[in-house]
Amino acid sequence: MTRDEVLGLTGQEFFTIRWDDGAVEMIDQRALPSREAYVRIGDPSGVAAAIRDMTIRGAPAIGIAGAMGGALAAVHGLDVEAAASMLASVRPTAVNLRWGVDRALAAWKAAAGECRADRANAVVAAAEDLLREDVAVCRAIGKNGAALLPDPATVLTHCNAGALATGGYGTALGVVRAAREAGKRVRVIADETRPFLQGARLTAWELARDGFDVTVIPDSNAATFLRRGDVSAVIVGADRIARNGDVANKVGTYPLAVLAREHGVPFYVAAPISTIDLATPDGDSIPIEDRPAREVTHVGATCIVPERVPVANVAFDVTPARLIGKIVTERGAFAPADMASVPGR
Amino acid sequence: MTRDEVLGLTGQEFFTIRWDDGAVEMIDQRALPSREAYVRIGDPSGVAAAIRDMTIRGAPAIGIAGAMGGALAAVHGLDVEAAASMLASVRPTAVNLRWGVDRALAAWKAAAGECRADRANAVVAAAEDLLREDVAVCRAIGKNGAALLPDPATVLTHCNAGALATGGYGTALGVVRAAREAGKRVRVIADETRPFLQGARLTAWELARDGFDVTVIPDSNAATFLRRGDVSAVIVGADRIARNGDVANKVGTYPLAVLAREHGVPFYVAAPISTIDLATPDGDSIPIEDRPAREVTHVGATCIVPERVPVANVAFDVTPARLIGKIVTERGAFAPADMASVPGR
Repeated sequence: MTRDEVLGLTGQEFFTIRWDDGAVEMIDQRALPSREAYVRIGDPSGVAAAIRDMTIRGAPAIGIAGAMGGALAAVHGLDVEAAASMLASVRPTAVNLRWGVDRALAAWKAAAGECRADRANAVVAAAEDLLREDVAVCRAIGKNGAALLPDPATVLTHCNAGALATGGYGTALGVVRAAREAGKRVRVIADETRPFLQGARLTAWELARDGFDVTVIPDSNAATFLRRGDVSAVIVGADRIARNGDVANKVGTYPLAVLAREHGVPFYVAAPISTIDLATPDGDSIPIEDRPAREVTHVGATCIVPERVPVANVAFDVTPARLIGKIVTERGAFAPADMASVPGR
Repeated sequence: MTRDEVLGLTGQEFFTIRWDDGAVEMIDQRALPSREAYVRIGDPSGVAAAIRDMTIRGAPAIGIAGAMGGALAAVHGLDVEAAASMLASVRPTAVNLRWGVDRALAAWKAAAGECRADRANAVVAAAEDLLREDVAVCRAIGKNGAALLPDPATVLTHCNAGALATGGYGTALGVVRAAREAGKRVRVIADETRPFLQGARLTAWELARDGFDVTVIPDSNAATFLRRGDVSAVIVGADRIARNGDVANKVGTYPLAVLAREHGVPFYVAAPISTIDLATPDGDSIPIEDRPAREVTHVGATCIVPERVPVANVAFDVTPARLIGKIVTERGAFAPADMASVPGR
């Protein structure tokens, strides 16, 4: 079995992130869909920069990147605890980042009695385990979510909760993939997801590449498709799930949830249990990141806002538990109110 | 008094559209905000092309353009009735286009007994009257709407229902302008309004130029600002108002109306009574335009959607009357249910 087969990448022809001989390789998500380019990073601060500038994004994927950043510190003789602390603080909303970094740090500490090389190998192994596990977790999420879909199904999704947001296979898009594997006919309507355009650029790219029927719409069109009765279910990922079932996800998720309820369309969140943060009581306690103005003011080289006019770029919003039908995890699909009793948390 | 003063343009330093010595001049709204360029058009098919490609847009503005297109036909010895029919069919949703064209055509027919030059002058006069009237109508809409706003007020708007969408002053933005003239402190949050970006490019440009406090947000951020309690009122324009009070407007208006109600924020439509179409019984009867895919797939030269992936570009949506607080016209602010009894219709 090749490494790519182990990672579940067979047939996808691309990878989101991997460890390769003392370095981290990742697809540059800023360049998609016009260029499929990979970057190779040799130090933790490079990984931090890649997370900050969204070379890599998606809650599970940045968790893996954080762990691999810790592995780079261990392998190259840097201060692993300092690197972990730096990496975990790069983006505030997705709890998976800290969780992934903590996995690397725990391996480092557990190997405290061993020689430097063995300790480093232990951290690398932990990071690679995390990547493998994440793909398996996504497959389980997919299977649990696919059972909720009718046949045929049209899934409306927002942002990218796909292979590119995870180690592979995806969470929300994992549900779509698993539905097809289960023999269901499934098509996807992808919100373009301004301003970073994860839907138009990333979801459309990975789904088209996998042969799915996917249509991109401006975010403002979603209500029209919901109203026309064209949507079987809305499925999105999550950056953090609070103890009470409130969900932080890419901005634009909350209005979709309101509109799904308005039209009687089921609204599902697909996420690994590592996204559930029982230490966060509710959505109001989730830190919401403001991203740089330039993501809004420019698309490529084109400036779309007059100079000197301020813009807002609130990167996430919170969907209250009452608007969510099910939270689909690798352990099953749960009511949002039941987060504290999900096995494994 | 100069013509610009007559047109109410003093101090704005720009104009949306005007008649000038046998030609129509208009600001090129595709080039804003990076370039303030004007185009000069000498024949009706040029006006039709400018309406189709959105060199000029906004329901009242394309009504004026339609009338001036008819005037060009009359002045240059073309078939006025054929030109009118062609112009009226360029865009289907805004009823003002046909209404404006019909004004020119009525002047042509009323002058049937006169010599060709006098008939042409009558059509030119009708088109210029329409422009002057539209500015006066916008000022009256503004005054009626401003009375509904608290002080201070934060207005959330979508698309551009401003000076650039009308002869001048604007409908929704006319309310903002009138509120300031009435001494109220008013700031604006402008949805960028994908895909054509009328909010980011046009609303921000004309408001900043007039010294207003305006902030541009991605459409998907609107729910966050509504939820935070940052918005006093949502005010939008309209492309067609049906007899039952349903309103067609730029896509993204309907979800805003749902979200405004969800958060107890008043939702107002500001439009001239020429936008009320009593021949259209309800929103389901309003023809909704699909616009070219390229508006979604490209921003400037940058392609944001993978090749071969289909996109939807539904240009308008319908907001049901039940979600609308008041429809603000030049004759006053009315409940949506009262459209059939608005004076002047």
